[in-house]
Amino acid sequence: MASFSRLVRFLAKDGRTYYGDAVLPKGVTDIAKAKQARVIQGPIFGKHEVTDHITDIRLLLAPLALEDVKTLRCLGLNYEKHAVESKLPIPKYPVLFYKPITSLAGPFDPIPVHALAQEGTGLDYECELVAIIGKTCSDVPESEALNYVLGYAIGNDVSHRDWQLQRGGGQWSLGKGFDGWAPYGPGIVSTSLIKDPQNLKISTKVNGKTVQSDNTRDQIFGIAKTIAFLSQGTTLLPGDVIFTGTPSGVAMGMKTPVWLKDGDVVEVALENVGSCINKVQFAQPKSKL
Amino acid sequence: MASFSRLVRFLAKDGRTYYGDAVLPKGVTDIAKAKQARVIQGPIFGKHEVTDHITDIRLLLAPLALEDVKTLRCLGLNYEKHAVESKLPIPKYPVLFYKPITSLAGPFDPIPVHALAQEGTGLDYECELVAIIGKTCSDVPESEALNYVLGYAIGNDVSHRDWQLQRGGGQWSLGKGFDGWAPYGPGIVSTSLIKDPQNLKISTKVNGKTVQSDNTRDQIFGIAKTIAFLSQGTTLLPGDVIFTGTPSGVAMGMKTPVWLKDGDVVEVALENVGSCINKVQFAQPKSKL
Repeated sequence: MASFSRLVRFLAKDGRTYYGDAVLPKGVTDIAKAKQARVIQGPIFGKHEVTDHITDIRLLLAPLALEDVKTLRCLGLNYEKHAVESKLPIPKYPVLFYKPITSLAGPFDPIPVHALAQEGTGLDYECELVAIIGKTCSDVPESEALNYVLGYAIGNDVSHRDWQLQRGGGQWSLGKGFDGWAPYGPGIVSTSLIKDPQNLKISTKVNGKTVQSDNTRDQIFGIAKTIAFLSQGTTLLPGDVIFTGTPSGVAMGMKTPVWLKDGDVVEVALENVGSCINKVQFAQPKSKL
Repeated sequence: MASFSRLVRFLAKDGRTYYGDAVLPKGVTDIAKAKQARVIQGPIFGKHEVTDHITDIRLLLAPLALEDVKTLRCLGLNYEKHAVESKLPIPKYPVLFYKPITSLAGPFDPIPVHALAQEGTGLDYECELVAIIGKTCSDVPESEALNYVLGYAIGNDVSHRDWQLQRGGGQWSLGKGFDGWAPYGPGIVSTSLIKDPQNLKISTKVNGKTVQSDNTRDQIFGIAKTIAFLSQGTTLLPGDVIFTGTPSGVAMGMKTPVWLKDGDVVEVALENVGSCINKVQFAQPKSKL
């Protein structure tokens, strides 16, 4: 359905921001390596055109502009081994939560850690297959659900376990919603290139060391089932972003958790999409409740 | 800060939709009774003008157009007696969750109950003081927080207790996020008219019978404290809507709960703002997972 193969949003050498269709060298699939893109003109969820104008990419940004995003949904416990390592039951229905759209960030942005999130312990990473809704849908059957997907990206559902699990009255929102805690990208790969989202290697490296490594085939609720379920009585809109849960290997699941710390570099990667590389950046404490 | 006194969005007799400043007869404060409004020209979060053009209101709509809303936050357990009736602990920090923006609806819209939400039992009402953010803010101190509020409305955080508490893996999202499950309005009263949001009577009637009746002074986290807390490391945007929790009296808290049923009429009201009157409307079952 999409007009593009690999949607990127980028800062160009002229200092302006564009949507574009990434131009990749033959044999390369990691969008993070794109140096050029065909400029897209017109609204990305409206009438637009991939032009012949190829321009240089200075920096890849979050693949959707904030004004083009509607709602950011996330699933929890969507890989069996991760549910086990979290000491939580295997879910019967998708476990749904939300992040605010301001948590979305670009593939190379730092992950800002506010003073509040420096309290306690538990700063953690979660590599996730991300699906972006391209067309309005509700009550869509599983067999048709993928027709409403614009494409896929890789994201990091950055989480602070104390705030998520201990201080939020059981709701996960407080420990997951800080500015910049949902970096994603490096672009959005069209469903014309990824026909089956349930057979993609997904992984996380922290400072170069692999800590999560799995395949999206292990998802409890695949993309089609997830969209069919979530769209029941709930309209999904173009620009809705869905983070679809993380496999095992998070710090929380370790016998002696190695939490993220200031300066750590986290790389989340998805086969046929690419990687996001984000540096943990502790803010100087300045505000307290 | 706001240019208006009582912001409304309405269908006019010419069949078009406008933002306006409600014109109320002397001594009347319930915006639901407004028959006319001064038309507002220009974007509501940008440069706009309350004109002298007064036009008739055919129907009041959700006070913000969907494209003007960013993120919809909600607080749980923000009145002590409601926490007790819910058999949950008094929170130390605000208990935060989200609804998708598609759950927002107008003050007189029906509350659609999808087949999925007709499963099990537990359809419930929650009258809530709603604050709308008017200016971008982050890390705002409590003493300045109200400067970032556009105004206040009354809302109903419609909830299905089985889906909220039993089937969602502990996350409240599934039972609260259906289309139309956050009616609010009937307009937004400027902070120039409501200087103190912590002294307003708030209530719910079901089929004319009062079931919730309290005062916003009983909130555990008042509006200023809530905004100061939520804005820590999280940017709040113009068009963010915050439902700030419900007092006691929900069906869930009754010894023998009287759940909402098809055809029930729910009226939530807030002093100096007005009321939303929404009819429960069961959809014909058509989809199942």
